[in-house]
Amino acid sequence: MAKEKKAPRPKAQTPKGFRDYFGAEVTERTEMLGKIAGVYHRYGFDALESAAVETVEALGKFLPDVDRPNEGVFAWQEDDEGGKGDWLALRYDLTAPLARVYAQHRNDLSLPYRRYAMGPVWRNEKPGPGRFRQFYQCDADTVGSGSVAADAEICAMLADTLEVVGIPRGDYIVRVNNRKVLNGVLESIGLDPNAEFGTGDRRETIDASLFAATRDAVLRTIDKFDKVGEAGVRELLGKGRLDASGAYIDGVGLSDAQAEPVIAFLTSKGETAAETIGNLKAAVGDSAIGTEGVAELEQIADLLAAGGYGPDRIVIDPSVVRGLGYYTGPVFEAELTFEILDEKGRKRQFGSVAGGGRYDDLVKRFTGQPVPATGVSIGVDRLLAALREKGRIGSQSMGPVVVTVMDRDRMGDYQAMVADLRNAGIRAEVYLGNPKNFGNQLKYADKRQSPVAVIEGGDEKANGVVQIKDLILGAKIAESASLEEWQDRPNQFEVPRDQLVTKVREILESYS
Amino acid sequence: MAKEKKAPRPKAQTPKGFRDYFGAEVTERTEMLGKIAGVYHRYGFDALESAAVETVEALGKFLPDVDRPNEGVFAWQEDDEGGKGDWLALRYDLTAPLARVYAQHRNDLSLPYRRYAMGPVWRNEKPGPGRFRQFYQCDADTVGSGSVAADAEICAMLADTLEVVGIPRGDYIVRVNNRKVLNGVLESIGLDPNAEFGTGDRRETIDASLFAATRDAVLRTIDKFDKVGEAGVRELLGKGRLDASGAYIDGVGLSDAQAEPVIAFLTSKGETAAETIGNLKAAVGDSAIGTEGVAELEQIADLLAAGGYGPDRIVIDPSVVRGLGYYTGPVFEAELTFEILDEKGRKRQFGSVAGGGRYDDLVKRFTGQPVPATGVSIGVDRLLAALREKGRIGSQSMGPVVVTVMDRDRMGDYQAMVADLRNAGIRAEVYLGNPKNFGNQLKYADKRQSPVAVIEGGDEKANGVVQIKDLILGAKIAESASLEEWQDRPNQFEVPRDQLVTKVREILESYS
Repeated sequence: MAKEKKAPRPKAQTPKGFRDYFGAEVTERTEMLGKIAGVYHRYGFDALESAAVETVEALGKFLPDVDRPNEGVFAWQEDDEGGKGDWLALRYDLTAPLARVYAQHRNDLSLPYRRYAMGPVWRNEKPGPGRFRQFYQCDADTVGSGSVAADAEICAMLADTLEVVGIPRGDYIVRVNNRKVLNGVLESIGLDPNAEFGTGDRRETIDASLFAATRDAVLRTIDKFDKVGEAGVRELLGKGRLDASGAYIDGVGLSDAQAEPVIAFLTSKGETAAETIGNLKAAVGDSAIGTEGVAELEQIADLLAAGGYGPDRIVIDPSVVRGLGYYTGPVFEAELTFEILDEKGRKRQFGSVAGGGRYDDLVKRFTGQPVPATGVSIGVDRLLAALREKGRIGSQSMGPVVVTVMDRDRMGDYQAMVADLRNAGIRAEVYLGNPKNFGNQLKYADKRQSPVAVIEGGDEKANGVVQIKDLILGAKIAESASLEEWQDRPNQFEVPRDQLVTKVREILESYS
Repeated sequence: MAKEKKAPRPKAQTPKGFRDYFGAEVTERTEMLGKIAGVYHRYGFDALESAAVETVEALGKFLPDVDRPNEGVFAWQEDDEGGKGDWLALRYDLTAPLARVYAQHRNDLSLPYRRYAMGPVWRNEKPGPGRFRQFYQCDADTVGSGSVAADAEICAMLADTLEVVGIPRGDYIVRVNNRKVLNGVLESIGLDPNAEFGTGDRRETIDASLFAATRDAVLRTIDKFDKVGEAGVRELLGKGRLDASGAYIDGVGLSDAQAEPVIAFLTSKGETAAETIGNLKAAVGDSAIGTEGVAELEQIADLLAAGGYGPDRIVIDPSVVRGLGYYTGPVFEAELTFEILDEKGRKRQFGSVAGGGRYDDLVKRFTGQPVPATGVSIGVDRLLAALREKGRIGSQSMGPVVVTVMDRDRMGDYQAMVADLRNAGIRAEVYLGNPKNFGNQLKYADKRQSPVAVIEGGDEKANGVVQIKDLILGAKIAESASLEEWQDRPNQFEVPRDQLVTKVREILESYS
């Protein structure tokens, strides 16, 4: 046969921004998602799994990064003779598919529709350290209910979820704010977000876009409250400020009288919910939308109190500004309040692990009818990191018991041992590499983090016994300066073959 | 503001060949995969989750559909100024990513590497009824061990897995064959698959390609054994045959003497493993590779017997031909043996739910070194369908308890009820739609398959009681011709508010 030209070897590399997850990284996530699903299910939410692939048309332009509405997704065109195939794309979140699902199946769904979804989403973005282009989301949403009871329920569910996965009460807080209150504040300073303008008059058009630009600038400034604080926001709403680098940042240009209610809104959190509500009432003045927003927060607080969710778990907190520009009503955020050390060794709070709120126009683009919806998204990777910080997961991952191979012709004997162990529910494996070098087998067991190795040579076989090597104890002895403390407990001993399972189980139980 | 041109509404449609999964469809699959992962873990296999996206280069041409090696995947090019970005694609199976992972991380892995993976894969193929372009696979493979103990272990694990997910012993069989035995048969009739030819001599080149074409034709014919049976294969190996439609199918053109050992191989299954092995020894004659293959099957049978896996669970069966062209050593297939009715109402065996075998060249393309590997893939959707057939899943899916809303101003009271139920571990929800029409609330509960509705109007509230409506009993009464059999058990009754949880639990337990 004629020799074919040799193709160069392919690179064994994940694409940029993607990674592999091994062992406990996978099972810990699966376990956490299972616990979350359990809570969501108990709250009456139904599972939904849509495909990873949607038409670009259905995904629309809902990507949070509004500056690049068409970018950010992995997309391709369907094969088609005339090049007219649909454009398809990987979903970038779980909300856009929910809107499509609701619009497509709404006649078959029980409405209001409570659904949860968990799975990977994809972003076509420049990867960075710790920033991947595929990651998990875990969402719960109620579509088709305008009742604030739906929002309150999601906050309660979020608190329950955090406790069920292992964040104790006191280590987290769910904060609730309301976009409508902010709208009331904006209205009260002459920046009514729902102001209607006539059309056709050129001057009005200019006014309208100036107006919108100012309002958007106020929203962007509020978003910086976390970073620059009250004084910083006050400067940015007014004339501007010098930032940390010495650069001068232009302000929005509001008067002091206009800026004041915005600041009052952001700093209105009192000692009690009643005090906060009182402050907010003052901040929105006689704005109808603002008053409605404050009343919603009051109802949410009452509903949560009725369900037994006190301010130790869920609080009304108008300083929560993340997502205020995106949501249309109540907004919530779950923060973990325990301290960790950051990369520079400084103490800081762990911070946000989940957020959500009410959004009303998601389905409208498909059906023309507005459909109220509210939901929450848990940051799966951050919550896993938090559980690791708290030592709730990953503290120890024990490998399988390794049955070593002393005599390759007696593989059947080793197979029988491993079958006995497995049938007793013990994680076990027989060494499947080249058995010639016994040291390699013990190195393998070590790398596998095996708690126990089982050894049966010809002599043991003849005597009906096996050797059991306690590898955890062995490692402790190796680390210890003095052998004395271990001398009453040998790390290798002989047992009759028929006691193999019992003795291995005893060792495993002593370490669990 | 100038009116923008209205964009047409997007279609709310899954792309062709994709679908949504709702409620129990999702949770039943998750639960089954969790059980399978439990068995795999007990066998010492570690979880691996690679990304959905790989470089086309890394995926290579391993798609089983060898006639269209570059088609079949969803692929796109990375953005890049010069149009020179990498081509990326969605994985089409879990084996190609495993090869990439092994080659990339082999220095950090414990070798031999036992890994399992479960998740969706994507095929860019024409969708058909019941044929989707995204579906789940669930694989376990051992990479880096040439020992047949690795193959035997996978067969045992497959048997255990089927029992753990709910297929009772007797309702399945794992069949084992070996490509090497077939190679021996081919060698014995002058079609040695490993024959070496010189290069440069034109006549030899022609001989070699004729030879390869004949061998491939024999392999393709063997693949039809399931469909056309012994007589059909005999005709197709020889002169050809008339197929069911009356068309004449050309044969491979082997002589009777050449065809005979192939037929002997396919029909060599005896009453016992020993008898089968004896028949196979005769079929391969003095071929070295064939003798090696038979010895491997013998060892597998011995290892399985040592582990307690008898022929009621795993058998040597040379009539298993699926994948023989792809694998290089032992080949296995799990079949469910109970009968179902096909779409035409005829009885037939449920058939294959898993398959696998040994393949040796998967990693070589990355590293240049051959790495032995063996593994199995479970057809997740077929296994779920089988469990549904057996009534193991999906027999009943009970919805949540629905707390109805009689008085929208007392949402706090209803919220408290639902919190009590949820805190007691009972799946429950408060009705979140417009409460005005009470009939709609009961229709909702019905559509949700709720077992119980809870009702508290003003009178009940005043008296400290709630109404409990047993909806399952109600449905039974509505279906029943006579009310008498139900008259001792009312389907709606009043209980003190503080007995709500107890009474609801009683009803739920009576139906579980």
